[in-house]
Parts: sequence; C-alpha cells; structure tokens
Amino acid sequence: MKTVTCTAPVNIAVIKYWGKRDEKLILPLNDSISFTLSQDEMCAKTTVSISPKFSEDQFWLNDKKESLENPRIQNCLKEIRRRASKRKFDGKDENVWSWHVHICSKNNFPTAAGLASSAAGYACLVYALGQVYGVEGDLSPVARQGSGSACRSVHGGLVRWHKGEDDDGADSVARPIAPPGHFPDLQVIICVVSAGQKKTGSTEGMRQTVASSSLMQHRIKVSLPSRIESMMKAIEEKDWPTFCDLTIADSNEMHAVCLDTSPPCVYMTDTSHAVASLIHKYNDLKTDQGDINHKVCYTFDAGPNACIFTPGAVAKEVLPLLLQAFPPPPAQTPKEYVKGIASQPAPLSKELKRLADGCAQSGKLQYLIHTKVGDGPRVLVDPASSLLNTTTGLPNTTDGDM
Amino acid sequence: MKTVTCTAPVNIAVIKYWGKRDEKLILPLNDSISFTLSQDEMCAKTTVSISPKFSEDQFWLNDKKESLENPRIQNCLKEIRRRASKRKFDGKDENVWSWHVHICSKNNFPTAAGLASSAAGYACLVYALGQVYGVEGDLSPVARQGSGSACRSVHGGLVRWHKGEDDDGADSVARPIAPPGHFPDLQVIICVVSAGQKKTGSTEGMRQTVASSSLMQHRIKVSLPSRIESMMKAIEEKDWPTFCDLTIADSNEMHAVCLDTSPPCVYMTDTSHAVASLIHKYNDLKTDQGDINHKVCYTFDAGPNACIFTPGAVAKEVLPLLLQAFPPPPAQTPKEYVKGIASQPAPLSKELKRLADGCAQSGKLQYLIHTKVGDGPRVLVDPASSLLNTTTGLPNTTDGDM
Repeated sequence: MKTVTCTAPVNIAVIKYWGKRDEKLILPLNDSISFTLSQDEMCAKTTVSISPKFSEDQFWLNDKKESLENPRIQNCLKEIRRRASKRKFDGKDENVWSWHVHICSKNNFPTAAGLASSAAGYACLVYALGQVYGVEGDLSPVARQGSGSACRSVHGGLVRWHKGEDDDGADSVARPIAPPGHFPDLQVIICVVSAGQKKTGSTEGMRQTVASSSLMQHRIKVSLPSRIESMMKAIEEKDWPTFCDLTIADSNEMHAVCLDTSPPCVYMTDTSHAVASLIHKYNDLKTDQGDINHKVCYTFDAGPNACIFTPGAVAKEVLPLLLQAFPPPPAQTPKEYVKGIASQPAPLSKELKRLADGCAQSGKLQYLIHTKVGDGPRVLVDPASSLLNTTTGLPNTTDGDM
Repeated sequence: MKTVTCTAPVNIAVIKYWGKRDEKLILPLNDSISFTLSQDEMCAKTTVSISPKFSEDQFWLNDKKESLENPRIQNCLKEIRRRASKRKFDGKDENVWSWHVHICSKNNFPTAAGLASSAAGYACLVYALGQVYGVEGDLSPVARQGSGSACRSVHGGLVRWHKGEDDDGADSVARPIAPPGHFPDLQVIICVVSAGQKKTGSTEGMRQTVASSSLMQHRIKVSLPSRIESMMKAIEEKDWPTFCDLTIADSNEMHAVCLDTSPPCVYMTDTSHAVASLIHKYNDLKTDQGDINHKVCYTFDAGPNACIFTPGAVAKEVLPLLLQAFPPPPAQTPKEYVKGIASQPAPLSKELKRLADGCAQSGKLQYLIHTKVGDGPRVLVDPASSLLNTTTGLPNTTDGDM
C-alpha cells in the first residue's frame, strides 16, 4: 500500500474567471490571474492510499463516506490513471494505475466562510493522486477538470490561468507568474459577511451570464484583453497602486455582468458594498495625502465576502478601521472575531475614526480572517498527519490534527 | 397681473437615461423612453404670476422662500422669456417677457419616496411659465435644461426623448409615442424601500460612469441602439411580454454600468434585489403555466425603489404577493401601507403564497404606491387651486388643497 497526504491552498482571483467556452472540459472564455493564499489559515487536506488489495475506489469527505460517482472527481481520477499508465516505471509497480484508491479529504476552512473550497479541494485531490500514482508534469489541466479555478491552486504566489485555444483543453493551464513575496509582506483580510439568502451557484450563474448579458461580450472582447495586459505589466513592474486599481475594476466589472444577467445574479450584499465603499474612502484619503503606495484593494468572488489585499504596514491601519466600521457583535471577543495572524492594531487616527464612523454597521460581518499570500500544495511527511490508517487504508477515526 | 396654476406628472423610464454628452445643455448620450404616471397620486404643482408691478423675480418651494440663483431655473426662465419676446402679440402685452415673475411650487409626493421629483418639478415650472408668458410650441427642450428627464414629463403616456445631434440641443426633444391607454388598464406599483445610506447623486454618478466604465461604451454603442429599436417595435405591436423583458433588461444594464463605475454607484439595495427576484419568480411561474401575457416588469431609477408595471388584472395577484413577501411593520395599517388606488386584492393561491414566503422580509418596505399611467401637465382653472394670492401675488398661507 502506498499512502500520501497533501494540503493545498485557496486562491483568490484578481482578474476573474466568469464564463466557460466548454462546459464539459471546463475551458474558460478568458485568462484569469490569482493570488494563492497561505495554508496556515485555510487549506484543503487529502490523504490517498492505493493498494493492489483494495477491491474498489472509496471516498470520504469531511468525515462522511461519499459516492465517487461525481463526474468531476471521475474525470480527475481517470486522467491521473491515464497518465500513470503511460509512465515508464523502472521494473516494479508497472500496473500501479490499475490499483484502487481510497481518498479522504477535509477542509479546514472556518465554517460558512463561503470561500472557494472546491478550488483547494480539487487541487489537493489531484496533487495527492499525482504523488501516489507517481505522475509528473503539469497537473493544472487535471485540477481544472475538477473545478475550473482549482488549476490556479496548484501553484503558489501569483498565478495565471491561460484560457488556451485547443479544443481538447490541453493548453488551458495555470502557470506561476511571480512568487508569494513578489509584493513584499502582502497580507490578506477576508471579511466574512453574515449569511444572507441563497444565491445562484457559480456554474449556473456563468452559464446564464454568457447566454443573456450583452455587456459580457464587451468584457470578453474588449475590457479583459487590455486589463490582463495592464495587470501583467503592473505585476512585472511591482506597481502596487495600479495592481490595486485593476483588481478593484475587474471585481466590479464581473459583478456588473452578473447583474446584467437574466435573471440577475446578485452576489454582493449591502454589507459587501459598505466594505467596498470604506476601502474607496480610505484610498481616496491616502491619495489626497500624496501617499499612493498606502493603497489597498478589494475583490469579491461569487459571494458576499470581501477579500482585501493590503501591504502589512497598511494592514495595521486597515484592520482597526474595519473593526471600527464593523464592530463585532457584543457576544464575540476580538479573538473570535479576527481569526488568523495575531496582530497589534495601531490606534486609529481621528480622521480614520471619523471615516469608519460614517459607515459603521455593527453585526454585519460574522468575522474576519487575517492571513497572507502563500505557496502551492505540500506533501506532509509526518505519518501522524495522515487521514487514512496506513495499515487498513480506512479513515482514522480520531483526527485532532486538522 | 396674470396668474396660472399647473400640475405635472412624474415619469418612469423603461429605457434609461444615464450619461450626458453635454453637461451644460443637459444633452444625453442616448435616447430614452418613459411612461408618464397618473397625477392622481403624485404630481408637482406650480402657480406663476407675472405683473408689470413686481419689482423682482421670487420663488417659493414647498412653503419656503428660495433663491432664484439656481442656474437650471435661470436657464428655463431665460429661455421662456426669450421665446416670449419673439412672439407676435396682438397689440397688447408686447413686453410681457420683461415682467417679473413670482413662482410658487409644491410636490405632493409622499415624503421620502426618493422619486424623480425634479422631473415633475421642472416640467411643471416650464409648463406654467409657458402658459403665463403665452409661449407656444414644444417646451420639452426647455424643461430638459432644468432636469434632463423633465422633458419627458411634458407629455402623457409613452414618451421618447431623442438624444438629438445638434450642438445647441435644439433637436434633443421629447415626443409622445403612445397614449396612456396604449396597453389597456396598465397599473403601477411603486415599492418604497426603507431608507438606507445616502447614495451618489445622479448628476455626479452619470459623470463618473461616463468617465470610468468600460462597459458603458458597449451600452451606448451596441446594446441601446438595438434595444430602443426592439422597444419601439414592441410598443407598436402592443407586445407586452417583450416590453417587460426589455424594461427589465435595461434597468439591470443601467445598474450594471453604475456598479462598473469607479467608485461604484450602488443604488439598488438587498431589498431592491429581493423585489426583483420575486418578480422574476412570478414571471417564471406564469410562463411555466403558459400564461405569457400575465407578466409584470420592474425598473429601478437611481435609487432603491422598485417601480412595477402590471396589467390591472395581474395587479390583483401581484399586490397581495408583494404584501405577503413584504408585510407591513406591525404598527402600520394596510391603508397606510398601500397608498393610492383602493383595490380588493384577490386571495393568494397556495403556489403564490409559497413563492412569497420563500423571500419574505417584514419591514423592508416603507410603503407601496398603487397608481396608473397617465397624461401630461394640466392647467387648473379653479382659482381656489392657486398657490399665489391673485391680488398680492404672494403665497396663500393656508393651502389645504395640495
């Protein structure tokens, strides 16, 4: 029996993926660019075991036995086995690709974060399968077939997913474009908005936008090609203010085409807009003061939660600003309210206090996650981290190490 | 002394005006189409008196003396006087254009409705001035210089404001395209959303959209020309379902380009979206039942309030649906909650009750206004309706007739 345990990160797009050119292969209409987040605060974890003695493939997700019929998981598994079958092994394990697999996965995201858990989950699954079946090479197009944006979680730092041109999706791959430290000491604050009504899922939402939004044509044909070029240049030149402007513009354009959909896909709530508005006011204040590098940017995925990118020095000011504008519900301690990196927030200036008080809304956020950008999937070598018993290949019932 | 009292209606655009090509002359980037609403529920009222004995122009608005320095009022007044000076009078009052004017205006809108009061206000002012100075001909380009959309309130029924091509705006005029009864028994329900935070004014918002939204280019160059053509055809053919689809699409597209603005102009709130979503669900249900003429549509101006157009027979179902989904706050009686046309709502079917319960949000609406489409400005001949004393030319202190 061979067993491998891996973790994989969440990624947040700064140039958004919204719309497919091929539903089955999950090929996007446009390139996208993302930042991979640190796995210290959020990650998916997967243990895979293969053995010639296993009689069938089995799958456990978050401590529950699940069916493996899901075509997306099947596609990933088939592709890994196909690649394994073509590999040259040195004499032994030639037919490893035919062994059955046990898969055990968990997400360590704070509950209800509504974050892109499927991206981390599929990246982790595919990475672990690649390790256990001894498959080398670029796994991003395999992860892509699990969940489009999962292909970006295969790498750390800044990642570009090329839409590709091939009908079979062979060139629709994610490639790292800069390491996590490219913008030094970059931090991330995720504002988790208190749950509202259930929204359209992103697969369905994308399909409806492509089918019904006239503005979407402009996004794909005109805005995005030019914005992606500008974003690549901003990244290359480490031009943080431009990076911020483009990130904000692309998030708003994506949500604009969502609203232009019939029926409208509305993901941002009043609270989302209040966070965005606070960030604009903060940036305006800093620009007025001539401090243009003291900038932060927000981006929203297909959900209400704000993801804020901020240089560490600025986070010291932005975090207390957010706490002033969105104080925790009385029952919550500051530690429960701000998860992640422990930080000593600076006292707010009078000016910033006034700015926050202008849009103060207590209880509108569930909590904040303070984290960083980070690197790609990891193999955990400590056997204690395995989710499967290395003798039986069945889930470890006690697992305090998630 | 000559005195005239007029009322003028509110209008609601179904193809929206958003963006100017000339800020000073108020020339729009695109044609727009609107329905004029009944003056029974909402109107502006203005009395103007002119006399060779008045020593200066004076202005009272909603019982308060106001300065006449506002350049928009000045532009209207100058243009009316210019036209009056060119008129051929039969011997007497040749220099009527040089007489000073007293203007007294009131809006009878329910407070805080956030409805386009300036459109009704300027249409009324210009119409009354035209009457008192004896100016004939199309007054829509004069009203336009007060407030762009005011030009559409100069006519009843369905009205098209042509953007025009001339630099001086001479051909940027509103023309009636169909009478109020064009779609028989058409009713209007305005859902007044409980006040949220103050939003960007529409003049400033338009300017920012034109300056910063890439999607706006597509709206102006691609979507609108084709949508306006389709809308004219739908009106001509009395094709109600298509009229509804186009109205909804244009409202959402306008709010999409607002969101695509830097900083974003966000006018719709969670409650606005909840109303829109309910209407989509209602329409989907009726379409599934094969009853495509049983359709309603919504549209949102630069504010959170939903304006719903509905055939009278459908209103009997849609009004109780709205009341079920958005019940009045406990302190409010149904009569206070639904202003306007008294109606006997039909009991809700189980199906519709379920639909409303799925998105029920008590207290999210302040109240509803149930009204109709209607005709253009009117001259009130009853001297009792005058807001100015016909002897002194000063405001009547007691005015119970608003």
